[in-house]
Amino acid sequence: MGRWEPDARGRLAKAALELYSERGFEQTTVVEIAKRAGLTERTFFRHYADKREVLFAGSSALQELFVRAVADAPESAAPIDALAAGLDAVSEMFADRREYARKRQAVIMANAELQERELIKLASMSAALADTLCRRGVAEPAASLTAEAGVAVFKVGFERWIVAAEERDMAHLMRDSLDELKAVTAGG
Amino acid sequence: MGRWEPDARGRLAKAALELYSERGFEQTTVVEIAKRAGLTERTFFRHYADKREVLFAGSSALQELFVRAVADAPESAAPIDALAAGLDAVSEMFADRREYARKRQAVIMANAELQERELIKLASMSAALADTLCRRGVAEPAASLTAEAGVAVFKVGFERWIVAAEERDMAHLMRDSLDELKAVTAGG
Repeated sequence: MGRWEPDARGRLAKAALELYSERGFEQTTVVEIAKRAGLTERTFFRHYADKREVLFAGSSALQELFVRAVADAPESAAPIDALAAGLDAVSEMFADRREYARKRQAVIMANAELQERELIKLASMSAALADTLCRRGVAEPAASLTAEAGVAVFKVGFERWIVAAEERDMAHLMRDSLDELKAVTAGG
Repeated sequence: MGRWEPDARGRLAKAALELYSERGFEQTTVVEIAKRAGLTERTFFRHYADKREVLFAGSSALQELFVRAVADAPESAAPIDALAAGLDAVSEMFADRREYARKRQAVIMANAELQERELIKLASMSAALADTLCRRGVAEPAASLTAEAGVAVFKVGFERWIVAAEERDMAHLMRDSLDELKAVTAGG
């Protein structure tokens, strides 16, 4: 990218989210996003495959970070503690993105196709976590169940974190959600 | 339906699954399904909205059964035990459908669109279970976490049940998966 387009990627993402929030995802075109960002359509396609990709470009990074933290947890850590380390790492990544996350979530909840995409990303994260736990020596079905539990905690913790007026940080809410899960599963 | 079409619905479902297995979901047409079942295209559309619906017609019944069993669990039952009652009810429904379930799963795993649909059905089940638990007086986030845990156990238990050569019944595998989840969450 030339120097005449500083942070084109970030500007496109910001413009896209503004437009999706204002007029809806379906009603927004790539041309409009590029224009709002003061860039060309051609530049848009150098950074994103399509207008949906703008919303999900961070999902791969999220998954990689989560998986790496689980993989790098001390060898002696129980599966659920390796998972907790992953949730901590993820929380750190999101720390200063709460407003962005709130807007993005509102856009996604308004569109069935985007909700499907989000579910696919979560399923992919669960599969990657299960794989990572297997590599740590966790047997099946414990690996898959721990991974599913991890995604459940992430999902619920994330939803709590983006509630309007919620001020507790993500790491706190993730830990609290994990503790709640432990409590409900122990309750039987 | 006239008496000249005994069990048209069941025959169409059987024919559809055969064809999806033989030549793939995308390559199969409604005309072919009707023909294989010895019925007309018109009859097909009296029973199913489209060829995808044939595979997911049971999902609503499954969700209703699961939810009702959770709702009907003794008032004194802990959330996780109400959930276990739901898993028992679901297992009973599936008892004599293992071969069908194996074939259906193979068809779904071969097609991204069908996998998305399956994820949506599971997300819907989780939301309905969380709602039911809330009505039982379970507070959030415990209700959502218990529901997500329930869907995780169902998913993993189901996948174990349909593995080739697996002979243990579904109720056993669901209970075992729930116990495994309890063990991993207690392990931290």
